[in-house]
Amino acid sequence: MAGTHVNKLVVIGVGHVGSYVLADGAASGLFGEIITIDTDSGVAHGEALDQFQATGVPTRTNTTIRAGGYADCADADIVIIAAGPSMVPDPDNPTGQPDRAALSATNAAVIREVMGNLSAVTRDPVVIVITNPCDTMSYIAATEFGFAPGRVFGTGTMLDSARMRRLIASRHDIDPKSVAGFMIGEHGLSAVPALSCVRVAGFRNDQLGEAFGGRPYEVRELADDVVDAAYQVFNAKGWTNAGVAQSAIAMARAVLLDENSVHPAAMPLDGEYGIDDVALSLPCVIGRTGATRRVAPPLDDTEHAMLMASADAIRQAMKDAQAGAFRRR
Amino acid sequence: MAGTHVNKLVVIGVGHVGSYVLADGAASGLFGEIITIDTDSGVAHGEALDQFQATGVPTRTNTTIRAGGYADCADADIVIIAAGPSMVPDPDNPTGQPDRAALSATNAAVIREVMGNLSAVTRDPVVIVITNPCDTMSYIAATEFGFAPGRVFGTGTMLDSARMRRLIASRHDIDPKSVAGFMIGEHGLSAVPALSCVRVAGFRNDQLGEAFGGRPYEVRELADDVVDAAYQVFNAKGWTNAGVAQSAIAMARAVLLDENSVHPAAMPLDGEYGIDDVALSLPCVIGRTGATRRVAPPLDDTEHAMLMASADAIRQAMKDAQAGAFRRR
Amino acid sequence: MAGTHVNKLVVIGVGHVGSYVLADGAASGLFGEIITIDTDSGVAHGEALDQFQATGVPTRTNTTIRAGGYADCADADIVIIAAGPSMVPDPDNPTGQPDRAALSATNAAVIREVMGNLSAVTRDPVVIVITNPCDTMSYIAATEFGFAPGRVFGTGTMLDSARMRRLIASRHDIDPKSVAGFMIGEHGLSAVPALSCVRVAGFRNDQLGEAFGGRPYEVRELADDVVDAAYQVFNAKGWTNAGVAQSAIAMARAVLLDENSVHPAAMPLDGEYGIDDVALSLPCVIGRTGATRRVAPPLDDTEHAMLMASADAIRQAMKDAQAGAFRRR
Amino acid sequence: MAGTHVNKLVVIGVGHVGSYVLADGAASGLFGEIITIDTDSGVAHGEALDQFQATGVPTRTNTTIRAGGYADCADADIVIIAAGPSMVPDPDNPTGQPDRAALSATNAAVIREVMGNLSAVTRDPVVIVITNPCDTMSYIAATEFGFAPGRVFGTGTMLDSARMRRLIASRHDIDPKSVAGFMIGEHGLSAVPALSCVRVAGFRNDQLGEAFGGRPYEVRELADDVVDAAYQVFNAKGWTNAGVAQSAIAMARAVLLDENSVHPAAMPLDGEYGIDDVALSLPCVIGRTGATRRVAPPLDDTEHAMLMASADAIRQAMKDAQAGAFRRR
Repeated sequence: MAGTHVNKLVVIGVGHVGSYVLADGAASGLFGEIITIDTDSGVAHGEALDQFQATGVPTRTNTTIRAGGYADCADADIVIIAAGPSMVPDPDNPTGQPDRAALSATNAAVIREVMGNLSAVTRDPVVIVITNPCDTMSYIAATEFGFAPGRVFGTGTMLDSARMRRLIASRHDIDPKSVAGFMIGEHGLSAVPALSCVRVAGFRNDQLGEAFGGRPYEVRELADDVVDAAYQVFNAKGWTNAGVAQSAIAMARAVLLDENSVHPAAMPLDGEYGIDDVALSLPCVIGRTGATRRVAPPLDDTEHAMLMASADAIRQAMKDAQAGAFRRR
Repeated sequence: MAGTHVNKLVVIGVGHVGSYVLADGAASGLFGEIITIDTDSGVAHGEALDQFQATGVPTRTNTTIRAGGYADCADADIVIIAAGPSMVPDPDNPTGQPDRAALSATNAAVIREVMGNLSAVTRDPVVIVITNPCDTMSYIAATEFGFAPGRVFGTGTMLDSARMRRLIASRHDIDPKSVAGFMIGEHGLSAVPALSCVRVAGFRNDQLGEAFGGRPYEVRELADDVVDAAYQVFNAKGWTNAGVAQSAIAMARAVLLDENSVHPAAMPLDGEYGIDDVALSLPCVIGRTGATRRVAPPLDDTEHAMLMASADAIRQAMKDAQAGAFRRR
Repeated sequence: MAGTHVNKLVVIGVGHVGSYVLADGAASGLFGEIITIDTDSGVAHGEALDQFQATGVPTRTNTTIRAGGYADCADADIVIIAAGPSMVPDPDNPTGQPDRAALSATNAAVIREVMGNLSAVTRDPVVIVITNPCDTMSYIAATEFGFAPGRVFGTGTMLDSARMRRLIASRHDIDPKSVAGFMIGEHGLSAVPALSCVRVAGFRNDQLGEAFGGRPYEVRELADDVVDAAYQVFNAKGWTNAGVAQSAIAMARAVLLDENSVHPAAMPLDGEYGIDDVALSLPCVIGRTGATRRVAPPLDDTEHAMLMASADAIRQAMKDAQAGAFRRR
Repeated sequence: MAGTHVNKLVVIGVGHVGSYVLADGAASGLFGEIITIDTDSGVAHGEALDQFQATGVPTRTNTTIRAGGYADCADADIVIIAAGPSMVPDPDNPTGQPDRAALSATNAAVIREVMGNLSAVTRDPVVIVITNPCDTMSYIAATEFGFAPGRVFGTGTMLDSARMRRLIASRHDIDPKSVAGFMIGEHGLSAVPALSCVRVAGFRNDQLGEAFGGRPYEVRELADDVVDAAYQVFNAKGWTNAGVAQSAIAMARAVLLDENSVHPAAMPLDGEYGIDDVALSLPCVIGRTGATRRVAPPLDDTEHAMLMASADAIRQAMKDAQAGAFRRR
């Protein structure tokens, strides 16, 4: 009701990523109330209380921040899910890449529990999924619990796109805000730079060197550097969280203010590029009822092939998660 | 509803003050939609369109900003009223102070028309009155149209308080945010510095010189300087608008985020200091349903006498406006 | 020096536009000190004092804001010039378009006086010119007073670009922040949409209808609508100021934080598209020392022809202003 | 120089606290450049790179963020020190309180190394110390390395004060921004609520119940609850970081904008309350050259006794750290 509504965020899972989502949400000035939910109720309480105490610093809004339960989702506007481990360590290979199959299976169970609990209370909030593997988790969350189309989506390549713009911008010594461009497909290893779509002041990527100085990226080099950038952070601090938290809150703002911003988001496809069995990121129009429009940008042959390969990579995670067409009957 | 609510502001009257309210509201990042209403529909359209075009600057939120009518208030969260002339020029005394009696009568009619139109559509929004004389206009708006107690209040001495803190801060070369203090009573000529309530880092006003350097204000000197500060601006640019617009949006934020911030606001009193026939500013707790708690701070004798005189000044404006006990039967 | 520097803005000319620049600068949180200069010293004082008093509202930074003189520019980081009338009324045609030739001549004198006074004190600040006709005024300011290349530029089509993105965005019901695009050439009547450079999520302008819904703009229709949008505001409220003030402060932020943001800005060309005798807007890289790189985007034939016509329109204003090659010897 | 200065922050130590300082600094919009320094160069790189990649999210400023070394401090405006362990675990008492004596000795060595390295390069930046025990570390940093008086201070009870305002505000269901009050003395266990100085809308603490509802705090109960609040967070998540990071950045803003804000900060006393051998927090005026004025608020007898005890607690930490009068000769 116009006379009583207060913008409310629920953050489910307040580990490395969720705690930054909480921090950025608290700093955003958008919310009158923020609730944390975590299987470790102590952590949910501790993170919420830490941020709540920080509202005593005079630059903050007086946002109510506390640990809660699923019943608190009943009148939430936004639910952001960052639950589940970000990797499942492999005892035989402690310094290697995470075991993605195990992660898929583990977090599928997490997402199904979270979404089951949530949908038992309400299907009104817009739900933003961060939990990895983000595409598969977004598929499960968007398709298995009866939410309206577009109400549930993942941050997907919103983060990869930020990294891509940063890399292109740094190469040509310009502001990443001046780089129009995005990545599509899987969030993570097989993410695809839609490099033929990139423009800076009307210049194509291959013209950027002449226009601004610096050597332009090639598509596979850029894809590799985006992954490498993530791994540099991952290996140095054990996780990445700054960019994805900012991404999730930027998406939440687009929802709350009904901005209809076009951001890449992970959603189940419906035939785009002939794909209809997985979720992956394409540019979506994000407004008050979620990601209600989705577009399939023109790609060149290399990008198209990379996208097909990316969909295949997601199919494997879907299988590991028993999701969609790969769900056990 | 949690799933569809978008924060909405309506600004009624977009002259010198309302246009700044609109600008500050558009910049606040709080609103998905802002509607302007003005008896001059061209001005309503021009101001709204100017700000709407500015949403194309990449630092802005994509807020829908357009001219509208009272029907647009139906789902508004906040209505800010800045309608009516800020003064009624006296042809016999063009450079003198405005004729306050004429202003009272003129703007009482304006407020009654605005509130009549608004209440015919809805009594749900929180209504913030800026139109001068603010206390009398707030009384009329709060009492004659059936809104719930606290839903309607005026910016009142929120602005005078800002000026007071600025003056005290400048005298001791500190940040006004570090000055805890406020003015009460009438907004304008007879506003009362609650100087005995002022504290900076625990020091009373009369101790500030020793603590921070500079000569402390005396109460009448401060009251005069606050009025003089307003007149300096008024005489130089013909109106004042920066501070009151900021004040109104700060109050709107307190409402939208349910902050329960304590700000001076103009409301009909209910026996505080023995006064029950006028509206004037006392510190109020401002949250989602408006100004629902109001306190009567301890005053010293001088301040109390000044408050009584201030109430008398408001009574004259009430009479000119045919408001409250002075209303024609 | 690292140990004492405080970001400082000087606003020269605080009429309808300059007062909004002042307001947005005060709200930006970027500046510790803001100085106003105006030929009407009362207005300079009144506008500064009004904003300074508003720093007593608790949401504001404690920015020193006061009227000053050119000596105050000595340690300024940014000087924004909004001096001069925004139009010169034609008594024989009071409701018609302003007499642009008269405006050019009048404001050329204003800019020469301002820049003469400024350069007598310092050539260190980055100077942002808003005064119209912006291109000619930027040419004079950038070339006649010995400032380093790029230190002086105009807001130019930064504003027209905002209006263009707003119009395209509204047509397809998306966020203007999601529209990558800009206008070039003259600020005002002959401004050129670089429509072939526009991209939304990788789609060309002519593909936006199919991708997002709505009928795509054609280039001349868009050019007309941008001008019409400005005139709607101009006719309704007598001036436009919201967008240009936001534009100037966005540029100032790019300078202060050394962002190297790519924005259209008005600068003397040096052979781009064969033009070397006028200033007009092309995308520029804006960082700490001003607009130090400038690019000439690929245009289609229609856009190129429109740009040549736009340069011609500026040449007429240059002649009226006795600027550049048209300067009397 | 006015023409080239870019606000620059260096964060030394990017563990749990420093990483939040980095995040809040990056989000503040104040800095064009942020440098991280850590004895674990991988962590310095990882945290910086994570935040730098996040600048590709379109809501961020294009701030250069990278790992660096002490040479990068040469032109820094602000250096924030969060180096050193936040506790030294006691293997015999893994769930108990940290061994504060060991922490003192360990971090004294850390601070001396950091400040030695810093002062070898420059004494121009304002240095804000977070490392615990904050008072002793601030004493060492402020007195042993030749910085100008006030240039070096600690966040001290800025954080405790935020917690105090939060607790008082929650008890009376109001905004903590409306609570004027602060804590003094040691940051941590023995911090002293200056409860006799607290005012809300002119009411003393003991009057708040009658004015706003809720039972007013007593001073020892409040002191205990502040410590308890911190321990609740500490025990739940292993550290506290949200509030202190916000505090440090609020102080940095006061410096950069020369706000002269009055905040509690930890500095060596010079005879206040008869104390001249330790650093502890009193309200300080914080502007461009640091904390240049410091005041000793009027206390009641209980508060005074608590402050004396708090100074004693700090003396023990000073002894453990071989600082000040306890320094080995």
